[in-house]
Amino acid sequence: MKIQLALDRLTIQEAINIAKKAEASIDWIEVGTSLIKEFGMESIYEIKNAFPHKSVVADIKTIDNAKYEFEICYQAGADIATVMGVSPQATLHTCYDVTQKWDKMMMIDLLNTTQETQQKLAIYNKAVFCHHLSKDEQEIGGKSSRSYTNLRAPFFEGAKVAVAGGVNLETMSSLSSLTPDVVIIGASITKAKDIEKAAEAFKNTIEDKGVVK
Amino acid sequence: MKIQLALDRLTIQEAINIAKKAEASIDWIEVGTSLIKEFGMESIYEIKNAFPHKSVVADIKTIDNAKYEFEICYQAGADIATVMGVSPQATLHTCYDVTQKWDKMMMIDLLNTTQETQQKLAIYNKAVFCHHLSKDEQEIGGKSSRSYTNLRAPFFEGAKVAVAGGVNLETMSSLSSLTPDVVIIGASITKAKDIEKAAEAFKNTIEDKGVVK
Repeated sequence: MKIQLALDRLTIQEAINIAKKAEASIDWIEVGTSLIKEFGMESIYEIKNAFPHKSVVADIKTIDNAKYEFEICYQAGADIATVMGVSPQATLHTCYDVTQKWDKMMMIDLLNTTQETQQKLAIYNKAVFCHHLSKDEQEIGGKSSRSYTNLRAPFFEGAKVAVAGGVNLETMSSLSSLTPDVVIIGASITKAKDIEKAAEAFKNTIEDKGVVK
Repeated sequence: MKIQLALDRLTIQEAINIAKKAEASIDWIEVGTSLIKEFGMESIYEIKNAFPHKSVVADIKTIDNAKYEFEICYQAGADIATVMGVSPQATLHTCYDVTQKWDKMMMIDLLNTTQETQQKLAIYNKAVFCHHLSKDEQEIGGKSSRSYTNLRAPFFEGAKVAVAGGVNLETMSSLSSLTPDVVIIGASITKAKDIEKAAEAFKNTIEDKGVVK
């Protein structure tokens, strides 16, 4: 199980400083949508430059203009880029094509997708499927709306899956038992008083469960 | 009927140069999603600075993190910001609240929304509803998938509506008869050999139809 550190609502330099403190305990570094929309591709470029040996996820949340958006992410150094599952099929297809051509990875954000849509997404057999409880839903509805039993059920056995949205140490244990391939953690690390220790605690939780891959 | 000039896949300076040439014939200036994702909020700030007397639309396509994204757009000088109709309701509500507080306008992008979703969106009585044929769909399916009869039908009589996606002089006449409040034009102006004349031609088409508001 990999830990993806989501960097959001920060300057690029703040994001780099935080990621440096957490570096030893995390696997993938996410340039959050807020950084991309606030600072553009420079955010991806600078963060990849600071962490050339880490996989960098550009959370660009593409929903149209797929070729252009995915190419500028990969050109800027991203290893993985995100597309919305609620996009038109043409957009998803194009993102997948660009990703294959660049020999990179695509993550599909399942935010607000129906079961029917999720089943259609199962054709993308090399994508990471990200179960995402949005910031806005968390703020209004708390964490009660998350109730997974099998993260891979809508897709296929062996599908790569991720979980995102308000993950903390308390929810981490139950999430771990669902064995996602990637768990995405933001504020629980980035807003911790001791960032290094917070990241370490997540890593230890995973290792205790014996589900590290 | 207002003309919104969409500036996409350009540098900020190219976008400003093009908008200056078209300025006399257009009403609203859209900072396209590609500019925002490539250059961040600077794109909105610079374009509003260059056209302080025009309404500037930030096509940020918010789908989560609503408060943060809408506030940075309005802080950067945007008069209108966009949110996806396929967003969770919490996101749409928050965008609407922020927009009301800032006394600005919200545009809801109807890309890939179902009829059921469109009906739910009718509660936002001060929004602009944007019927949007995406770039990716145009590239794959041509323009055949656009067949509107009444742009306001899913919402309410008097709803403010816009039309976007591959609009050209040929399709402009049929669109005009549907009397949208805003028609969004991109490449047909930005990629024209003579930008000033191209913009003028759209304006003349509208005036010929006698539907200028």
